[in-house]
Amino acid sequence: MPDVIPVDSVGIITPQIAQFETPLVLSCGQTLLSYQLVYETYGTLNTSASNAILICHALSGDHHAAGYHDMSDKKPGWWDSAIGPGKTIDTNKFFVIALNNLGGCCGSTGPSSINPDTGERWEATFPMVTVEDWVVSQARLADLLGIQTFAAIVGGSLGGMQALEWSIRYPDRLKSAVLVASAPKLSTQNIAFNEVARQSIRRDPEFFDGNYLNNETIPTNGLGLARMLGHITYLSDDALGAKFGRQMRHADYQYNYDIDFEVESYLRYQGEAFTKRFDANTYMLMTKALDYFDPAAKADNNLAKVLSQVTCEFLLVSFTTDWRFAPERSEEIVNALVKSGKPVSYAKIEASEGHDAFLFPIPRYMAVLNAFLTRIANNLTTESK
Amino acid sequence: MPDVIPVDSVGIITPQIAQFETPLVLSCGQTLLSYQLVYETYGTLNTSASNAILICHALSGDHHAAGYHDMSDKKPGWWDSAIGPGKTIDTNKFFVIALNNLGGCCGSTGPSSINPDTGERWEATFPMVTVEDWVVSQARLADLLGIQTFAAIVGGSLGGMQALEWSIRYPDRLKSAVLVASAPKLSTQNIAFNEVARQSIRRDPEFFDGNYLNNETIPTNGLGLARMLGHITYLSDDALGAKFGRQMRHADYQYNYDIDFEVESYLRYQGEAFTKRFDANTYMLMTKALDYFDPAAKADNNLAKVLSQVTCEFLLVSFTTDWRFAPERSEEIVNALVKSGKPVSYAKIEASEGHDAFLFPIPRYMAVLNAFLTRIANNLTTESK
Repeated sequence: MPDVIPVDSVGIITPQIAQFETPLVLSCGQTLLSYQLVYETYGTLNTSASNAILICHALSGDHHAAGYHDMSDKKPGWWDSAIGPGKTIDTNKFFVIALNNLGGCCGSTGPSSINPDTGERWEATFPMVTVEDWVVSQARLADLLGIQTFAAIVGGSLGGMQALEWSIRYPDRLKSAVLVASAPKLSTQNIAFNEVARQSIRRDPEFFDGNYLNNETIPTNGLGLARMLGHITYLSDDALGAKFGRQMRHADYQYNYDIDFEVESYLRYQGEAFTKRFDANTYMLMTKALDYFDPAAKADNNLAKVLSQVTCEFLLVSFTTDWRFAPERSEEIVNALVKSGKPVSYAKIEASEGHDAFLFPIPRYMAVLNAFLTRIANNLTTESK
Repeated sequence: MPDVIPVDSVGIITPQIAQFETPLVLSCGQTLLSYQLVYETYGTLNTSASNAILICHALSGDHHAAGYHDMSDKKPGWWDSAIGPGKTIDTNKFFVIALNNLGGCCGSTGPSSINPDTGERWEATFPMVTVEDWVVSQARLADLLGIQTFAAIVGGSLGGMQALEWSIRYPDRLKSAVLVASAPKLSTQNIAFNEVARQSIRRDPEFFDGNYLNNETIPTNGLGLARMLGHITYLSDDALGAKFGRQMRHADYQYNYDIDFEVESYLRYQGEAFTKRFDANTYMLMTKALDYFDPAAKADNNLAKVLSQVTCEFLLVSFTTDWRFAPERSEEIVNALVKSGKPVSYAKIEASEGHDAFLFPIPRYMAVLNAFLTRIANNLTTESK
């Protein structure tokens, strides 16, 4: 719906599909014989293919990070505020890639895709995927695009976990990793919230043990509920308070279970809207990928030991009111990097938005990220001279 | 299941029923023509009826606060650690009353009771009840028991709200109010969590718009889910972490939706156990009573103004890791009391247990409460001389 495309927009973007026919052995032991990944790119890859940035998405994100798909779009991509010519992640300097992860529901192979072996949707039979699997599949996409080494791999929340995994698994394939509002693993409380979200979905009779599309239905009640809960945890108590307080829909209490407080209406709306754009099986998979990520588990829970093998630089950013992945969680990674003698920059940003802050163009956050990436860009120039 | 009743137990207790035939006009405008309250008492009322303490229960509490119902009981009442001869709330000194609130499901008139007008269970037709309604009905119970003025009214969480309402509504009917882990009103986030809990229940097809018992079923999925969510918010992140960490059920990830982490199993168990003892309509009502409580709303949100009319002494207790009703929420009440020049003692207790701490016999908490009540008891003695 932009009347004109803003000058600092990447403009009209057409998603691309990469088809992979090399079998992918997943962490769970199952093998995907073939799969596709949908992705978008912004900016131009330089001749040395050294200026690529990979954007890894969070739980409910996708490949549409910036620009518009057509002029009727009401909104640009989810991180359009940060990606574009002259923006924080400057597409005049960088070639930016954003993809939808395997198991997703926005064009990459996932539970709602057709399983070529059966001719039916995968649904409940789609294998579990992990952060590690995503990183392997992203590396294959990089291969396809002719990118050996990324200038930066950037991600918020679950996206940050992917950037961290890249630094461990393919240390020579990235110059820098940017982890925003992330954590080295989920806390017990994080897992507990995920389990409630999954139970919300599983207990919806329309879920049909994950085979709802094949039963021509959608578990809207359960998925909506999971999103309502998620939403509370993405926002800070203060942000919710500032936005809604105890603002009422009517002059007086209704003394029934309709809307009394505006926050109730907001949550119901958020829940319902989500069910129209997201797949419940994908949501379940993504929460499990979050639960499972724990790179230090393989090394006696010694994160510093795991990180001793990384070679890229790091930027970590956290937000003061984020209680889902609190600053202390980012600091665990920072401290492990420091202990391993690795180069790391860290910024704890004052922000009222809670975990969701990673999606907002908060000036200090954008400035820190831009300064870091500008240095990366300058080093690229130096190196290619 | 006690082989012998401990010497500091109130012993075998028989709940009593008070039947009220005076119509009760509720906040919602509806009138209950008759109703009953189930209650227990511990200790002996002195001749001047000045040594009574009222215990107000929280969301899922009841009248069985101390002692055993019979020798086959596996556990004593929910606050047995604090109530008994020689205990913090000393039944050698005080006559302690605990009741099940109106709308409850443990013997007092509530949604699962028979509506005498129809001969059927009330269920969804049971009127909304508020903290104010509870306090009015508690005052009628006090009248029946010959108690004009309580030595103390004590409550944790939602129970603290009742004690606060008592101090405002019947200032001459209590000498002291003890509010533990409480708040002057819910925050937006609190309301949001309650709304998710209610939606969990309402979206369960077995809920039948609240008429499930009349349909010979129970919304176990929804009520269990609500309890799982509630449980997470009652505990601190640290407490959950200390209890379960990322402890796994099996040596390896299962890559399915069964139990991977022990915390998942714990939550499912807690949810299921709750559905066997609690009524979903009562849970819904209690969450609404929480949402609605806001005594300052009647006075331009000026809590100090509302509290200018109180005459009792106050003790407030909060717990450092309580994030449902954080210490700041208790401090709002403390500050308003100080502003109004009212006597108030306040203790913020170091405790890892989160909101649930109010149920635990944490030594400093028990010591503070005991010191406060001992002084109250001594003053009673002085007055009666």
